[in-house]
Amino acid sequence: MKYDDIRMRGFTTRHDVDEALAILQQRITSLPPEVIPLEEGLERVLAEDIVASVDVPHFDRAAVDGYGVHARDTFGASDYNRLPLTLIGEVLPGQAIDRTLRPNEAVRIMTGAPLPPGADAVVMAEYAEEEGEYVHILQPLSPFKNVGRVGEDIRQGDLVLTRGRKLRPQDLGVLASIQVTQIPVYRRPTVALIATGNELVRANEPLTGCHIVDSNSFTLGGLSRRLGALPVPKGIIRDDYQVIKEAIQQAGEDVVIVTGGTSVGAEDFAPLIIQELGELLVHGVAMRPSSPVGFGFIQQQPIFLIPGNPVSALVAFDAFVGPALQLMQGLQPAYPYAKVRGKLIRKIASAIGRVDFVRVRCTGAGVDPLRVTGASILSSTTRADGFVIVDKNSEGLNEGQEVEVYVY
Amino acid sequence: MKYDDIRMRGFTTRHDVDEALAILQQRITSLPPEVIPLEEGLERVLAEDIVASVDVPHFDRAAVDGYGVHARDTFGASDYNRLPLTLIGEVLPGQAIDRTLRPNEAVRIMTGAPLPPGADAVVMAEYAEEEGEYVHILQPLSPFKNVGRVGEDIRQGDLVLTRGRKLRPQDLGVLASIQVTQIPVYRRPTVALIATGNELVRANEPLTGCHIVDSNSFTLGGLSRRLGALPVPKGIIRDDYQVIKEAIQQAGEDVVIVTGGTSVGAEDFAPLIIQELGELLVHGVAMRPSSPVGFGFIQQQPIFLIPGNPVSALVAFDAFVGPALQLMQGLQPAYPYAKVRGKLIRKIASAIGRVDFVRVRCTGAGVDPLRVTGASILSSTTRADGFVIVDKNSEGLNEGQEVEVYVY
Repeated sequence: MKYDDIRMRGFTTRHDVDEALAILQQRITSLPPEVIPLEEGLERVLAEDIVASVDVPHFDRAAVDGYGVHARDTFGASDYNRLPLTLIGEVLPGQAIDRTLRPNEAVRIMTGAPLPPGADAVVMAEYAEEEGEYVHILQPLSPFKNVGRVGEDIRQGDLVLTRGRKLRPQDLGVLASIQVTQIPVYRRPTVALIATGNELVRANEPLTGCHIVDSNSFTLGGLSRRLGALPVPKGIIRDDYQVIKEAIQQAGEDVVIVTGGTSVGAEDFAPLIIQELGELLVHGVAMRPSSPVGFGFIQQQPIFLIPGNPVSALVAFDAFVGPALQLMQGLQPAYPYAKVRGKLIRKIASAIGRVDFVRVRCTGAGVDPLRVTGASILSSTTRADGFVIVDKNSEGLNEGQEVEVYVY
Repeated sequence: MKYDDIRMRGFTTRHDVDEALAILQQRITSLPPEVIPLEEGLERVLAEDIVASVDVPHFDRAAVDGYGVHARDTFGASDYNRLPLTLIGEVLPGQAIDRTLRPNEAVRIMTGAPLPPGADAVVMAEYAEEEGEYVHILQPLSPFKNVGRVGEDIRQGDLVLTRGRKLRPQDLGVLASIQVTQIPVYRRPTVALIATGNELVRANEPLTGCHIVDSNSFTLGGLSRRLGALPVPKGIIRDDYQVIKEAIQQAGEDVVIVTGGTSVGAEDFAPLIIQELGELLVHGVAMRPSSPVGFGFIQQQPIFLIPGNPVSALVAFDAFVGPALQLMQGLQPAYPYAKVRGKLIRKIASAIGRVDFVRVRCTGAGVDPLRVTGASILSSTTRADGFVIVDKNSEGLNEGQEVEVYVY
């Protein structure tokens, strides 16, 4: 194939980033749920609403150390009007007490212990004095003072957590407290990583004069894992239509990422293979870097065509693969980066009609766009603190302009 | 033991949060490093600086599809002055070419392929036209135009990543590209979780009238895991000095967390045990919730005394255990929460001399402090979007005041 042919096959139209995302969002559905032990639930996404089937706590309990009493027996109590109650014993946490507390009786009780039947308040130890078989009460209490009441944390029937919740540490605690120890969550997507390119060698192989290391499998593997997915590196595949096609066909994973050979050059087979096997929905996006990115589907399996340049690969993942992995886990797409605001200390040039992802450093002086902009300079993404997105309707951003930085 | 005795043992002094943290920071050192495969490096912390032992790329390569040439052979070329060069063949990525390019020769070359010896620029395909054994050049080039030069990404000898770096996905890619496939990282701390309390049952055990579920082991396990540590739940230990002591002595983990029984009540054995076995450095901190928190050391092993109330447990972890786990991994302590700013829609009352951790919701109207403030109400931490910290020098925060919210 000659370059004339290549030029004929050039990107005649490019999708907008938003357009491409909308197409993706329309096609991707969440994976089927699975049930896992609660211990493994951190950062998994609930596939069902969780309703409490018990009250927490499910008994009235002392909220302080002191004396369980009938509140009405304390009315009028003060330092100058010490009211004696008969001390009938002690309740500790984890001890049941069946004996009903009768009027003018008190029971020594510790924080967390169940109130005896009849008792409806707890006098703090500081406001009581024991003397023989009596305890003198020095303070009046309203009913249920210093009592943790049945259901005060969670009531039976409460909607505790909702479908789509990415579980936080405290969510695990709450689920334990209502005795939900097996939880329905969306399955974690598996991601086949197919690196194509005759120039690639594995990181631990000797480098000859024309080879470079396949770094993308590591970067994309880390990006996938960070979003809860399970990367499955398939190794390096040589630039051969049939071989790449077989690798794609054999990939049984939920998502396939093909890196390299995704553009419109003579050796760019992947887009043609997707067209042969399924549908190529997007190929070429008005963005920089990573404009040759694309994706399609083979039946329900999404296949992403990710440029081989390592910065492009990172940006393409963040823009499209990440959202897909989030949707598959029942989440709304969102960059997995914290955002900070700052002022540009130098201008950023861009062009209308294109979204630019610009690596920046956050310095004491402000937000500094990196001068090195080549899509092949992966080290720029480790020197950068994050990136700024220049909207497609913008010709660029001025020095001094406030921007939002997505922090790597 | 009577309450009089308890009161005698009350917290006579409390440490400031900052003071307590400083004590911790002074005593905790990073764990010894270990070497792991690069694939497992995501979010691990480098224990050594990494210096590149190779150039990336380590050969001059074409940055575009086109024709490798001597730049000086293109001087004066234009659409109206097409300069013919003799086409000597083709270089593809991954193909070495030993043949030196002589003056007035060109070679067809694809992005990523090595430049032949002698060639020092690449004419883009768009600015060249093949015709038989010649290619006509339509554009003048300066030397190294469209060439990715040796070391343009990383130079041999460059300090690529520094000790203490928490590895991002792209860092893994960069390390792969310089062929570092085994990496020195700080060991992940193991964390023994010892839950004490006769009132506790496991989440999957039947609840009787005086028991509650040990939810803390799940919350604290999730918090530990989120910070890269490895929680080791030790189950529920009954309130017995000797039994708790043995559980602590048997815990060989890097960190021990004892929950419950950490205050100064009759059944609060853990502080006394730490005093017996090692040093109790902090017990009682001027904060809310979680004022009975404490920590000490048995030789070099940190032991944290975490109140059993589930909200206190969460706050105590964030305030003290989290920083310890970060320090052990060679990181500076920092809350693992994104921060957003917002205006309070209701005031928060506090007291001078105490740090308050106040759960809030972020609503359209602003930052709304939760009305339910009990330290036993774990569900408040799942309803909350995050928390606000009220400084020890503040009596509280006013309605309308701008605050920083740590987002759960």
